[in-house]
Amino acid sequence: MTKEEVLFSKAKQVLPGGVSRNIIYRKPHPFYVSEAHGCYVTDINGVNRIDFANNVASLIHGHAHPAIVKAVCEQIQKGTAYTLATEVEIEHAQLLCNRIPSFDKIRFVNSGTEAVMAMIKAARAYTGKPKIAKAEGGYHGSYDVAEVSQSASPDNWGDIDNPNSVPHVYGTPQSVLNDVVIFHFNDIERTINILNRYAGEIACVIIDPVPHRIGMIPATNEFIDAIYQWTRENNALMCFDEVICFRVDYEGSQSAYSHKPDLTALGKIIGGGFPVGALAGKNEIMEILNPGGNNYRFSLSGTFSANPVSLIAGKTAMELFDKQAVEKINKMSQIAQQQILEAAKIADVPVYLTGKGSMFKIHFRETAPVNYRTAYEDKKTKKIMNMFLDHLYEKGIIMIDSCSCFLSTVITQKEIDALSEAVLSALKFIKPELEK
Amino acid sequence: MTKEEVLFSKAKQVLPGGVSRNIIYRKPHPFYVSEAHGCYVTDINGVNRIDFANNVASLIHGHAHPAIVKAVCEQIQKGTAYTLATEVEIEHAQLLCNRIPSFDKIRFVNSGTEAVMAMIKAARAYTGKPKIAKAEGGYHGSYDVAEVSQSASPDNWGDIDNPNSVPHVYGTPQSVLNDVVIFHFNDIERTINILNRYAGEIACVIIDPVPHRIGMIPATNEFIDAIYQWTRENNALMCFDEVICFRVDYEGSQSAYSHKPDLTALGKIIGGGFPVGALAGKNEIMEILNPGGNNYRFSLSGTFSANPVSLIAGKTAMELFDKQAVEKINKMSQIAQQQILEAAKIADVPVYLTGKGSMFKIHFRETAPVNYRTAYEDKKTKKIMNMFLDHLYEKGIIMIDSCSCFLSTVITQKEIDALSEAVLSALKFIKPELEK
Repeated sequence: MTKEEVLFSKAKQVLPGGVSRNIIYRKPHPFYVSEAHGCYVTDINGVNRIDFANNVASLIHGHAHPAIVKAVCEQIQKGTAYTLATEVEIEHAQLLCNRIPSFDKIRFVNSGTEAVMAMIKAARAYTGKPKIAKAEGGYHGSYDVAEVSQSASPDNWGDIDNPNSVPHVYGTPQSVLNDVVIFHFNDIERTINILNRYAGEIACVIIDPVPHRIGMIPATNEFIDAIYQWTRENNALMCFDEVICFRVDYEGSQSAYSHKPDLTALGKIIGGGFPVGALAGKNEIMEILNPGGNNYRFSLSGTFSANPVSLIAGKTAMELFDKQAVEKINKMSQIAQQQILEAAKIADVPVYLTGKGSMFKIHFRETAPVNYRTAYEDKKTKKIMNMFLDHLYEKGIIMIDSCSCFLSTVITQKEIDALSEAVLSALKFIKPELEK
Repeated sequence: MTKEEVLFSKAKQVLPGGVSRNIIYRKPHPFYVSEAHGCYVTDINGVNRIDFANNVASLIHGHAHPAIVKAVCEQIQKGTAYTLATEVEIEHAQLLCNRIPSFDKIRFVNSGTEAVMAMIKAARAYTGKPKIAKAEGGYHGSYDVAEVSQSASPDNWGDIDNPNSVPHVYGTPQSVLNDVVIFHFNDIERTINILNRYAGEIACVIIDPVPHRIGMIPATNEFIDAIYQWTRENNALMCFDEVICFRVDYEGSQSAYSHKPDLTALGKIIGGGFPVGALAGKNEIMEILNPGGNNYRFSLSGTFSANPVSLIAGKTAMELFDKQAVEKINKMSQIAQQQILEAAKIADVPVYLTGKGSMFKIHFRETAPVNYRTAYEDKKTKKIMNMFLDHLYEKGIIMIDSCSCFLSTVITQKEIDALSEAVLSALKFIKPELEK
């Protein structure tokens, strides 16, 4: 038996399916890591690979960045969690609120899932309305309301002008489905028509401006404008889920749009590699979280929320992710994408890239998808994607199951060259399958 | 201005109410910590206090335990989060599954809130039914379904035979309230009558066997028996929330009962001071989480779930929390409670203690509360509790806002003596107020 087989046989005894997270599930078994430094991950056999996954986009400086390791280990000597306040929670809040114009105030939680849940609860508490609206196919974490229609498919998504609220998890109560209005990303006319049907009941419209699971197609300025206007006219909030896409620009993905969100959910990179989430937004709305305020409506606990380890790591990471670092990583991403398109030309395989800043997704097609339905990957496509990913892994490249790359700031031309070489090889490998 | 006033004035600019967590909210400002070691917390003025709060029950070995610091700092050098599996997730799962008979398999998440949410989603997915039942006043984290009636009060809790589903957060949708059935802790007849009304719709009955916010009154064996029988007869699951009370015995609070839960939510101490949660239970039910299984019904993601930092810390903490350690800490708790009762006698103040193992709660009354309604603390009581807590803090003792103590294994007779001396002083201080 290989080392992996030994571990997996033990894992299957105590973990459902032998895995702790679906993202690492693979046949015949997951891969196991020994250690990781910078953009290199070493598996339990001592093999090094270049990491373009970065724990699903959460490590903006790669693994074990010396400044973060130092700051965190100093903190850990002094304790990791208290029933008292800390200075670092103020400092990290200052950093983020000073940096992003739409963040007047911020509240930290433990994960992106908790951040989106807090955002939805805040929107309901502020508006007094029960429903939320979200894009078909949008991934917003594991809160049941937020995950409706995340995995909708042709057999259940319904008519395009009247999309179904599709349960993601078996047993999702009908009441949850009824409280979620599904619209189509970047499709202004259809979206406004759908929203109008439930105008009096919608507390917020949630948008991930560069949605990983909707083909990683950036939202147009016109679409954001239309949503913004609709929310102004209908006493609803415009909420951004920037848990993943906050990395695309110095002020987050929202810097690209004329209108800013009322509330933003954060996670991933703002924790420097440690569990984190946050809800940030306008004073008037955030005030509902103030236990001593006149409009206190939302009591929010959390044993590990704002713990000093996640916050010192996150603060250190975000200080290092300054304007120059953002510019550099986004430039490296441009170079990587250029080289991948060149590889596709050489391999004579149709490839289209979507994404923004330091994140991009490879599609095996000639034209751009425009929404979830056109970006939808069927079984055949998924099989080819898995062949592509397995081949890349063999060649020393770690990507995400969506065939996406999330770069870290420590990436250099050397790793980009290795990426495009491996992609060329993998494209040649899947070519016969694509042409079937 | 004091150091605290300076920090708080900055905090108010960027955090709603100037706080990151409600538990640390205090008038005129929160207290700020500098560092903490063992059972001692040092504030920003260099003053040491003894910690009986332990970050709301989550630090079973106190602060910065050397073995945990060492294990975690070694891990951090090797990375904190990957898109691959790790050995430590298997090892911590083995430890917990080998230790607790009802844990066949386990899935890690990031917080107690996420654990309870996963437990409810699993129960719905397994049974196909929408409703949950929970005890009035029970605290089960921030998932909206789980927090219904957590803060019910005499003006809204309704008739005892027909208790209302009371929203905890303003704007909680009616649909959420409708999906939650409220029963009375330890009240077998009323509870069974209420459950019977919704028998066909209830996916699970959730019980915290030593509920912190229901007077910390342990569930009777008869009550657990009755719930167990009812769930067997009505195709529902019996779910324990042991996020807080897992610490009370070597195999958790469930070891005291003849019947074991189908599913258990965990958090707090199993993360060794780092963000953690977990769902554990029977094979047949946990199998719905297996992405490769025939009964896969519950897709659960989580960027930081099962991260190696929380798990190496948790594994180290739980290894140290062996049978001898459990016995010792529970013995110290008995001594502390005995000394507090003696102090009450000396002060001639009515005091009743509830709790179990290493956690107990001080009530300023002569008789035991029996459920949430009889344990309910009105404004006058809360004011006295705050006076008591402020006095203790002045005298160098940190307790939780509920006047509860959660001990750590590093506590010694010296700190227990300091506790009972401070309690004596505080009881004398509040006596005139109690007699008003």
